[in-house]
Amino acid sequence: MKLENLQKLMLDQLKDTYDAEHQITKALPKMQEAASSPELQRAFQTHLNQTQSQISRLEQVFEMLGQKPSRKACKGMQGLIEEGNEMMKENADSDVRDAGLIASAQKVEHYEISAYGTLRTYANLLGHHQAADLLQQTLDEEAQTDEMLTQIASKVNVQAAR
Amino acid sequence: MKLENLQKLMLDQLKDTYDAEHQITKALPKMQEAASSPELQRAFQTHLNQTQSQISRLEQVFEMLGQKPSRKACKGMQGLIEEGNEMMKENADSDVRDAGLIASAQKVEHYEISAYGTLRTYANLLGHHQAADLLQQTLDEEAQTDEMLTQIASKVNVQAAR
Repeated sequence: MKLENLQKLMLDQLKDTYDAEHQITKALPKMQEAASSPELQRAFQTHLNQTQSQISRLEQVFEMLGQKPSRKACKGMQGLIEEGNEMMKENADSDVRDAGLIASAQKVEHYEISAYGTLRTYANLLGHHQAADLLQQTLDEEAQTDEMLTQIASKVNVQAAR
Repeated sequence: MKLENLQKLMLDQLKDTYDAEHQITKALPKMQEAASSPELQRAFQTHLNQTQSQISRLEQVFEMLGQKPSRKACKGMQGLIEEGNEMMKENADSDVRDAGLIASAQKVEHYEISAYGTLRTYANLLGHHQAADLLQQTLDEEAQTDEMLTQIASKVNVQAAR
């Protein structure tokens, strides 16, 4: 497929993000299992539920663009998740592991904040305003999740620093 | 090395970020070469110079922690750069490629915003206030670069949408 215009690029990035979200649904249960703080475990569970809705929104966006949902291997997310896996395998005290898991999860959130910000901008420019609204909803959720992780970190990090 | 406390985790993340910055110094000249917009080429050049200073700051932070600078392969950045390389290889119109390069670069910036935010927080908690100041300086620069890329995108995307 030649990327001859922004519509094609938007579709390309949509497939990348759709794949990234699927990767995240696989990673979150492992992160939840590796976490010790019940608050952090709940945060990962909540975000897993959110991610399912975000996948449904992406499917609606594909439909609005007249396309069937499809995935394109997202190398960026593969790397971020691999980095998170390394953290889970570290020989670490439980509070320190929790702090590390939060750091990894925030990198994932920032990837998504960047991806959805770009997609929302493209959608607006191309006149897909309903799609832009859906993408903005997810963008807001990702920013809230990042903020929630910062809140949890403010407790976990203090315990890890002892 | 056992990650038995936050100081050890900070050192681990510092090595990861130090490696990420080195990877970025290799990637930016290629992105500059692939870019068509002179403004975007200049932005990549400016950020390359900034990245050199950011590497020096990280070396100072290692020193403040009583450690020699060393790298730990940053899988997250490897994935992000691979994703950027894919974009460069796409059969794309020049404006569309520029838009795609900006999208990739903003994902890299967001990785760094997350990484430096975490490092700055750890440094403050551990009482390394001078180190925290240096990390905050870089964090501010990364946020400015992200903002500058958004500004350039506001022109490039319109041309790509034609």
